[in-house]
Amino acid sequence: MTTDVLLVAKCDDEWPVRVIELLDQRLSVSRVDALQGPINSTDYSSVRIIVGGPSHVAPWVTVCPNLQWIQSTWAGVDALTDIVPKGVVVTPLKDVFGQSMSEFVMGWILALERRILERASSSFWDDRSEDGVLGKTMGILGTGSIGTAIAASARQFGIRCRGLNSDGRSIEGFEACFKTGVHRFFDNLDYVVSVLPKTAATDNAINHDAIQRLSPESIVINIGRGNAIDDVALRSALTDGSVRAAVLDVFRNEPLPDSDAYWNTPNAYITAHTSAPTLERFVARAMSANLDRFLAGQNLLGAFDPSKGY
Amino acid sequence: MTTDVLLVAKCDDEWPVRVIELLDQRLSVSRVDALQGPINSTDYSSVRIIVGGPSHVAPWVTVCPNLQWIQSTWAGVDALTDIVPKGVVVTPLKDVFGQSMSEFVMGWILALERRILERASSSFWDDRSEDGVLGKTMGILGTGSIGTAIAASARQFGIRCRGLNSDGRSIEGFEACFKTGVHRFFDNLDYVVSVLPKTAATDNAINHDAIQRLSPESIVINIGRGNAIDDVALRSALTDGSVRAAVLDVFRNEPLPDSDAYWNTPNAYITAHTSAPTLERFVARAMSANLDRFLAGQNLLGAFDPSKGY
Repeated sequence: MTTDVLLVAKCDDEWPVRVIELLDQRLSVSRVDALQGPINSTDYSSVRIIVGGPSHVAPWVTVCPNLQWIQSTWAGVDALTDIVPKGVVVTPLKDVFGQSMSEFVMGWILALERRILERASSSFWDDRSEDGVLGKTMGILGTGSIGTAIAASARQFGIRCRGLNSDGRSIEGFEACFKTGVHRFFDNLDYVVSVLPKTAATDNAINHDAIQRLSPESIVINIGRGNAIDDVALRSALTDGSVRAAVLDVFRNEPLPDSDAYWNTPNAYITAHTSAPTLERFVARAMSANLDRFLAGQNLLGAFDPSKGY
Repeated sequence: MTTDVLLVAKCDDEWPVRVIELLDQRLSVSRVDALQGPINSTDYSSVRIIVGGPSHVAPWVTVCPNLQWIQSTWAGVDALTDIVPKGVVVTPLKDVFGQSMSEFVMGWILALERRILERASSSFWDDRSEDGVLGKTMGILGTGSIGTAIAASARQFGIRCRGLNSDGRSIEGFEACFKTGVHRFFDNLDYVVSVLPKTAATDNAINHDAIQRLSPESIVINIGRGNAIDDVALRSALTDGSVRAAVLDVFRNEPLPDSDAYWNTPNAYITAHTSAPTLERFVARAMSANLDRFLAGQNLLGAFDPSKGY
């Protein structure tokens, strides 16, 4: 197989079209099915770049001995961190998910606070009113480009925002920032939103003690990685009503198994890792600047840093 | 009855508490039940100010011969316009509903576009994705304080906004404004939001021709007054799928009768005039500035103008 670039994509993925356009005339490219692994008898030694979702790319890493660059089509690259050989650069897809995740977060919060879920199926004149979101407080775990975009959307509705990050540094758009592990961050929060990546430091960031500190009417939203939540503690809080609702888009095991207790936990809303789909245009746009650098033999921008874990 | 101010309120209304605090020591005040009319044998000649919802205030207007000022607790005062004697000033409740109506509009749009209504009751791993609202176009009928607040919220999510008003004057925050009756306003709109007051000029502003011009995936939202929509045309468009969904908070007859065809129209979501509840603090805040002016014998600010109809 004499191809420079391998696109590991699902049949209905639309991003390869734009990436093929981008690479046109510069590098040879092949598209393979993300749900099929490599073929044993095939020689993949010409492959220098792989583009795809980290879980799908993983089986290809060891069969491509001359691999130099993996462009991830996801923000989180934890599925690759333990298997990528030294010298292979991984670039996560960044700065493109803020819009979609802001829509998800504000859509769910407004749906719950303004009783849209109830009213959508109401068959009578239900004139109970509700207070809305003005003056409520949101705590966002993760203050990078996604967290900052979510804070901007929330502020537009008069929601106050505080942030949690690795060293408590202040970030524009957040009234206050706290360091990971400082549980005062959670005190009386109405909304908790995690966009944390999966690292050892983010394991169970939202644990029993954190949950106990929230407002009694709190809503917990996880759109980062499943490891950030102590699932037993959250299910218990949802069951006894000390947390009002949870909207969970990510889990320790995905797809969430049919037998998982979350499916039957009251006020747990399960979505299927759909808070921020990788849209057709995102991947080519993200690769564009680095492609010139790659061809010129320069260092790539926005590469995954193993020492930080993101 | 020797009272200066009559508060016409429902039993569970919370705004009278704050108004009573405001009037304390300056004017004598009585609270009456909005669902009961005046008592025939009682003399209401001392009443100079009435505060309440226009429909509830209406029966009191004729029994208060020395009435000078009606402070409405609603934005729309159409229920009073034909019955208020010359010389009585009506001040609608303004500039307080933008927040609540923005929450309502964006909450419903995001719930529909991000399939939150579906996903809320999903019992399987539904990993279909959706495009979101970036780059969609919203047309707002009415560019006053409410319409402008809605446009600001929509823009935050990358939605482009155009406006419709009485003379087509341009308004900050709208890419273009059109004059009432110019149907190009509706061309290819993804979202139509009416915040129009009830006047002769706003009757059936959203009629068959307007609806035909919308995008095939359009969402129609009415939070102004029911007269703005040609109900037969909208129901027909919802039934044949040429409009994707309608979220209707106001109607020609409220409460919407049980027999109304909207209850059984596909993709019509009915809410009970709850898009912008009058919160506890709103009425006292709105009255505060005018109360000093009233006691000093000055003209009141923000009064209803019969020549405009709002």
